[in-house]
Amino acid sequence: MSLQLNKSEKSDHLYMEVYHYYRDLIMEHKLLPGSKMPSLRKCAQELKLSRTTIENAYLQLAADGYIISKAQSGYYVTDIARSRQTSLSASKACKPDYFRYDFASSGVDRESFRFDLWRRYIKSALRQDERLLSYGEPQGEADFRQALAEYIRQRRNVLCSADDIVVGAGVQSLLHILCPLVQDKKTVSFPTPSFVQGSTVFQDYGFEVRYRNKDCGVIYVSPAHMTKWGEIMPVSRRLELIHYAAEHHSLIIEDDFENEFVYLQKPTPSLFSLAGGQGVVYIGSFSRLLLPSIRISFMVLPGSLKEAYLKKADRYNQTASKAEQIALCQFIRDGHLAAQTRKLKRLYSVKLKQLLAAVRTVFGADSRIRIGAAGTSLALTLTVPFTGKELQEKAKEQGLRIQLLREEPGEVTVILSCSSMPEKDFLPACSLLKDICSVS
Amino acid sequence: MSLQLNKSEKSDHLYMEVYHYYRDLIMEHKLLPGSKMPSLRKCAQELKLSRTTIENAYLQLAADGYIISKAQSGYYVTDIARSRQTSLSASKACKPDYFRYDFASSGVDRESFRFDLWRRYIKSALRQDERLLSYGEPQGEADFRQALAEYIRQRRNVLCSADDIVVGAGVQSLLHILCPLVQDKKTVSFPTPSFVQGSTVFQDYGFEVRYRNKDCGVIYVSPAHMTKWGEIMPVSRRLELIHYAAEHHSLIIEDDFENEFVYLQKPTPSLFSLAGGQGVVYIGSFSRLLLPSIRISFMVLPGSLKEAYLKKADRYNQTASKAEQIALCQFIRDGHLAAQTRKLKRLYSVKLKQLLAAVRTVFGADSRIRIGAAGTSLALTLTVPFTGKELQEKAKEQGLRIQLLREEPGEVTVILSCSSMPEKDFLPACSLLKDICSVS
Repeated sequence: MSLQLNKSEKSDHLYMEVYHYYRDLIMEHKLLPGSKMPSLRKCAQELKLSRTTIENAYLQLAADGYIISKAQSGYYVTDIARSRQTSLSASKACKPDYFRYDFASSGVDRESFRFDLWRRYIKSALRQDERLLSYGEPQGEADFRQALAEYIRQRRNVLCSADDIVVGAGVQSLLHILCPLVQDKKTVSFPTPSFVQGSTVFQDYGFEVRYRNKDCGVIYVSPAHMTKWGEIMPVSRRLELIHYAAEHHSLIIEDDFENEFVYLQKPTPSLFSLAGGQGVVYIGSFSRLLLPSIRISFMVLPGSLKEAYLKKADRYNQTASKAEQIALCQFIRDGHLAAQTRKLKRLYSVKLKQLLAAVRTVFGADSRIRIGAAGTSLALTLTVPFTGKELQEKAKEQGLRIQLLREEPGEVTVILSCSSMPEKDFLPACSLLKDICSVS
Repeated sequence: MSLQLNKSEKSDHLYMEVYHYYRDLIMEHKLLPGSKMPSLRKCAQELKLSRTTIENAYLQLAADGYIISKAQSGYYVTDIARSRQTSLSASKACKPDYFRYDFASSGVDRESFRFDLWRRYIKSALRQDERLLSYGEPQGEADFRQALAEYIRQRRNVLCSADDIVVGAGVQSLLHILCPLVQDKKTVSFPTPSFVQGSTVFQDYGFEVRYRNKDCGVIYVSPAHMTKWGEIMPVSRRLELIHYAAEHHSLIIEDDFENEFVYLQKPTPSLFSLAGGQGVVYIGSFSRLLLPSIRISFMVLPGSLKEAYLKKADRYNQTASKAEQIALCQFIRDGHLAAQTRKLKRLYSVKLKQLLAAVRTVFGADSRIRIGAAGTSLALTLTVPFTGKELQEKAKEQGLRIQLLREEPGEVTVILSCSSMPEKDFLPACSLLKDICSVS
């Protein structure tokens, strides 16, 4: 077995090289269906890599359908190479693009999350046999809602009781409960067309969706994430919005997305607290703070909506994992969520500054950059002789992933996110982007 | 400390006695807010009970808000007793009724689930750091859908590829994706009004809900669970339904709930397989096979609906826990789901027979019982001098929980489920029910 590994790559890219090595062997029929993969120990020895690296590669190969684990035996090659042409699912499994540099990820910084700690909390939750043997409370576990109520009171001045909180597996699950309650409002406004997950749910319930239009029955806003480059809504506009909505009997939905990552000033007060809990639904999520794969969000309902909800509460099953609710409850009580938030805020603040410096170094001091007071991204306008789609394709060929914001003839604005890219990649990734822009 | 424990109770009730003992001390202000609870070890010694029993009691007390754990320190009494009057949530937390005998639970038999095994699979899933650092696939994890496709092909002759499968956190989450796709069908039929979770979602999307009415745009059926006492739909009626629906361009939704628990005959073929995958959406769930707290369901979409879904797929976030999908995928591949199904089927078959025998012993050989070919329940008609609600209240006072099916003047029909009650309780629970019926 010979595998040329580029040892200068950071260790978290190593496992992808092992992954590609075996994937190619399997797809080129050099490793045949049914054949046994070398054991983790043996493979690690031969490649002179850590067992963990090999294990990560194997797990990814298994996840993508190239190999399969058999109990107490090991990993075996599947018949994916044979069925590739016929089965859509297999061809899809071959698709996962590997990006050397990913400016478009909304994942979290891989060093920032303490997996060991989270595993301990989940393990402890899984020991609560009695609780797991029954269905969860439709509204969310009572102790978890209690912990949430205390947490948002302390951090966002959102005063509510555990009874006002509804838990769900992501914002969409919450909107599926909320929309039917406010269906008579008929129109909804979103700040931009980019949050399709939100607008789709409203459309599904027959709402007319508009953008940046205060004259709607429902006004959906993310005050700490007004634009993709992190602009936040100033307090004066928050108060204006609250008064306007109250006058017109509109409901505000405040999605407090990324309020934790407001660096350049003190976090502004939540709309919910400014409005004294009247006419505002407050929504919070954890995917940017913990793991994107933890699907837990919650909403705080104001009085009138809460009454309407409670009449129907038993008709909606809880969607969020009970074990994860139990784990997160204790995680919050033990102060880890607050600590994790502080840590991420510090980390992203430093990373965003470094990314800004890297962009200025590569594209020059007069490069057209927009950057807000919050978030993990900046916007960069590039002068290029091709369209946005073309730029994106050319970048992809070079292993660089970027997100398009808008384009005009001769120029394209892209969003560069620092959240999951290691700092050392900022300069080479920016240089690569510049090279791509100058080749016609 | 003196606690009179009734040692004749089974060990899984012991922890509830410890729970009640401390709950009362706390609510009667004998244990004051902020005071430290005895350590698990010390408490176990003093009460001469196992550490696990004490731990279960403490965990339940914490879950209900009576005590709170502090990191590296122990458990402390909350101020729940003080805030009981003022806070709704606290009063709610006092509510958890403890039933000595529960005939109404849809939980699983507590001896049947191998927690140790499941914990191992979750632990292994939580080791896949890279996968958990990114958002899940909107449709559900690819390897999990592959495993599901193979599983239902083998067991239910449902032929589909992983691409036809959509995963969600419970049936409602699936209906939230499905309803908008078939909104033009306007009417839906359910077999009975009892599945409010299903009918509510359709109503929320503007559907008119009818019952047992084939002339609807959508026909929702559970062929292995036609009635609460386990009647199943015969093959002849299945074929009839398929032909009728095809002629009238109606869509059938086949909720294959409890098909695993068909004892008295060979499992009948799924509507999906009988219809050759045309015009039928197949839905499967795991809450009755594994843990009710695992919120994972899936649906198989027929060709035309799949195309419509794929156009919108990216607009719906996945609701099911990624870690639980990864764990369940491997659990299925290793054959544990098949083994668990066999085990439960055997167990429930025996238990249901014993429950039937107990009812006949207590209520006489001519008692009016209805029992089907599947499921975990029977229906019993009782002659009583009060209403169903009154009967239920009287039973509750005695620690007995029953589910009402219907009532007519002078008689009430109840549903008795054997699933989560230990066998040794069948006779005393039936005797208690008889005593309650004869007291006026």
